[in-house]
Amino acid sequence: MKSVVYNRLRRIVDASRVSDAIEDRIVSSYDASRIKYLPDVVVKIITTKEVSEILKIAYTEKVPVYTRGAGSSVTGSAVPVKGGILLDTSLMNRIVEISPVDLTAVVEPGVVVTDFQKEVEKYNLFYPPDPASADFCTIGGNVATGAGGLRCIKYGTTRDYVLGLEVVLSDGRIINTGGGTLKKVSGYDLTRLMVGSEGTLGIFTRIILRLIPKPTAESTISAFFDTPDKAIEFGVLLLEKGILPRSLEFMDRACLMAVNKYRPDLKIPPTSQAMILVEFDGQPEDVNNQATQSCKLLEGIQPITLKRAVNKEEAKYLWSVRKAISAALYSITTQKISEDICVPRHAIKPILSYLNEIGASSGIPVAVFGHLGDGNLHINFLVSNPSDRAFGTSKEQEARLAGVLDKLFTKTIKLGGTLSGEHGIGMTKAKYLPLEWGRDEIELFRAIKQLFDPKNILNPDKIFSQYDVWV
Amino acid sequence: MKSVVYNRLRRIVDASRVSDAIEDRIVSSYDASRIKYLPDVVVKIITTKEVSEILKIAYTEKVPVYTRGAGSSVTGSAVPVKGGILLDTSLMNRIVEISPVDLTAVVEPGVVVTDFQKEVEKYNLFYPPDPASADFCTIGGNVATGAGGLRCIKYGTTRDYVLGLEVVLSDGRIINTGGGTLKKVSGYDLTRLMVGSEGTLGIFTRIILRLIPKPTAESTISAFFDTPDKAIEFGVLLLEKGILPRSLEFMDRACLMAVNKYRPDLKIPPTSQAMILVEFDGQPEDVNNQATQSCKLLEGIQPITLKRAVNKEEAKYLWSVRKAISAALYSITTQKISEDICVPRHAIKPILSYLNEIGASSGIPVAVFGHLGDGNLHINFLVSNPSDRAFGTSKEQEARLAGVLDKLFTKTIKLGGTLSGEHGIGMTKAKYLPLEWGRDEIELFRAIKQLFDPKNILNPDKIFSQYDVWV
Repeated sequence: MKSVVYNRLRRIVDASRVSDAIEDRIVSSYDASRIKYLPDVVVKIITTKEVSEILKIAYTEKVPVYTRGAGSSVTGSAVPVKGGILLDTSLMNRIVEISPVDLTAVVEPGVVVTDFQKEVEKYNLFYPPDPASADFCTIGGNVATGAGGLRCIKYGTTRDYVLGLEVVLSDGRIINTGGGTLKKVSGYDLTRLMVGSEGTLGIFTRIILRLIPKPTAESTISAFFDTPDKAIEFGVLLLEKGILPRSLEFMDRACLMAVNKYRPDLKIPPTSQAMILVEFDGQPEDVNNQATQSCKLLEGIQPITLKRAVNKEEAKYLWSVRKAISAALYSITTQKISEDICVPRHAIKPILSYLNEIGASSGIPVAVFGHLGDGNLHINFLVSNPSDRAFGTSKEQEARLAGVLDKLFTKTIKLGGTLSGEHGIGMTKAKYLPLEWGRDEIELFRAIKQLFDPKNILNPDKIFSQYDVWV
Repeated sequence: MKSVVYNRLRRIVDASRVSDAIEDRIVSSYDASRIKYLPDVVVKIITTKEVSEILKIAYTEKVPVYTRGAGSSVTGSAVPVKGGILLDTSLMNRIVEISPVDLTAVVEPGVVVTDFQKEVEKYNLFYPPDPASADFCTIGGNVATGAGGLRCIKYGTTRDYVLGLEVVLSDGRIINTGGGTLKKVSGYDLTRLMVGSEGTLGIFTRIILRLIPKPTAESTISAFFDTPDKAIEFGVLLLEKGILPRSLEFMDRACLMAVNKYRPDLKIPPTSQAMILVEFDGQPEDVNNQATQSCKLLEGIQPITLKRAVNKEEAKYLWSVRKAISAALYSITTQKISEDICVPRHAIKPILSYLNEIGASSGIPVAVFGHLGDGNLHINFLVSNPSDRAFGTSKEQEARLAGVLDKLFTKTIKLGGTLSGEHGIGMTKAKYLPLEWGRDEIELFRAIKQLFDPKNILNPDKIFSQYDVWV
């Protein structure tokens, strides 16, 4: 990057917030995918005007611009793969407004999800999207990836809560999409086009969110089974009865064994092949009623154990198994590759058997947990190579893993599923895009990218691969 | 239109489904906006392949193509203003699949909303979008306009239930957007870009919809008030208590007076200045509980009368006032111009007072009803001119009405509202688009239109006006 760009950035933004020091560049070089590339300069943005001025320079000088919230993307969405300017949103984190009458809020992109949830709860309001990283990930990142989480079966994903955006376009122009009303059909829906676009179409500087009244009660149930089929069967039965939980989580045997080793105090029954966690919310009588009906259904399919939390402490305890999975898996492997396919619910059983097959034939252990309610499964391949993925594992291992991922994604698409339920495409899944989409669809995606970002400076080399395999 | 086009159409589609007879052209010439333009030829489509072949011809020959479901648009969305080919979807009306396990359905565009709702109820499922025209409007049209209805405060609009689309592009290529999974972030969200695009970006030939478990109970309450402020106050109180009704409808004095004249048997209290209808759904205990709490809240603000339905018959009776409004208004005026602005809920009171003002100063009577829960108000200007709008009312009246609409939309936008909550822009609101959107936003809308429809053959002259007033 030319030094003239650096100097101009320091005239737009207070010098204390512009840095090309190696330590600042390193901390912004990676995300949870473990892929690492150094940006040339890190700018801690605060105002929309700054972002607009920075993009005007970047546009003129054709400098790549990457936006980073908390860097919790697992697909490399936030990695500055071509260097250039990294916009850090961590200081642009004001909750501008919460309106209980309008059931809306206005936030800046750097607001941490849990901070926002806590704040709206003070007004007896509820912001349902709840990705596992909610304690540190930002709302800007959630909008960029269309983040999901644990409550989607009942409440949908981030997409369903974004009413409007202020967006800085690649040439620095500032536009507004959507707005502060709960309904709107005026012009094209640029808001939802932006949601999930992974920072490739524009930079969000203000976000208008929809809120709902806070449910007054919750109830949590857990059950262990001697076969995963019973867990899946329960999910179908529950919805057949017209009961809609807010969470319906699944953990397979590999996850449970790992957690058992890591947290023996959680006393997972040794014969367990699967666990489900189901949680209801709403008005107290209703929640109680649904939980009681669920327990009856569960008893009918004979779980090994069945527990219903009677208070928040117990609920937290039941969630401990689910919350411990990630750390537990890292305690039995040095590296895991996590994918987040989503399939129609009828395809959950077939995809799980297929995973058993390819796990066995490849020799790569697989651990599966995820959102049974919406078919969004987190599939973890436990790779034993001690070196870091970003800096190269052994060629043989890489090839074996690539073969398994190819098989997984091919089968997923064949079953009517998608490459990603909530993580997005980023860098790690870009080459698989042609498995899911045809030539005409990808041509349209690319044309939209070209329309919004003609010089390809916004988060370049994400979503789209250099080559499309069917070309 | 060249006769060669007509002849080629008859080779693609069975001759019995292609007609240039004047009677067929007339019945497809108008929609509920009462605007009328004759198409050159009407084609009753059945298959995606047909639509694709027809568009290939239209693209080559630059012939406008209009798609018509039930013609229930009130903004002229379905009117073939430039002639050309009219695609009638009424025969393309199969419910292809309903999957209770996946909680999804696949339908063709011509399926009537109520028919679909009844069909999914057989599986104990629920499709919430419920526009007032549900008994005759089509799902294709609902997707094209992003239709809303009576249950949006709890369940959202059509947009929230469309998971995927098969779309024929202007040049005849067939693409798929979204898919059959409940979550998906892979490529750009073309599905939501299509929703509300009013047939200007592509023609939907297959629609994948999300379903939810059917609520097992409902409860309906109505109340009349001596001031509209009490109705608005109730809406705020209810949500403050964390109670989320599925419907929260409002009717003003003018509506009630008209209904009273039209249906004296409904015994509207003569001093009524406003009425609300509130409806809950869910599990029986929960619904009962919410209705009881609502009645307590209502008693606290002293309605003239308060009624709670104890069975379906009574609920239907309470809804009679609301359902009678449209016919009742036509019994006291020969013509009404209906707008469907949506404002943030805090702006409902100011916009209602403003309407009183402009109604009084213009001498045009105004009747307001609508969705108090989401700020989407149906504003009816009762125009006494007996001639039809499409064929010219008196110049003086036109000018007066235009002045009032200008004022209404300007104030609405100023209050953070939108031109349309659920009807869309079509022809009647195109010229107001620059009130709501800036130059850059409209430039983007136009660029997207250009990208999808470079020859401007898909529903031309909709959404965008010939001129933009700020140019």
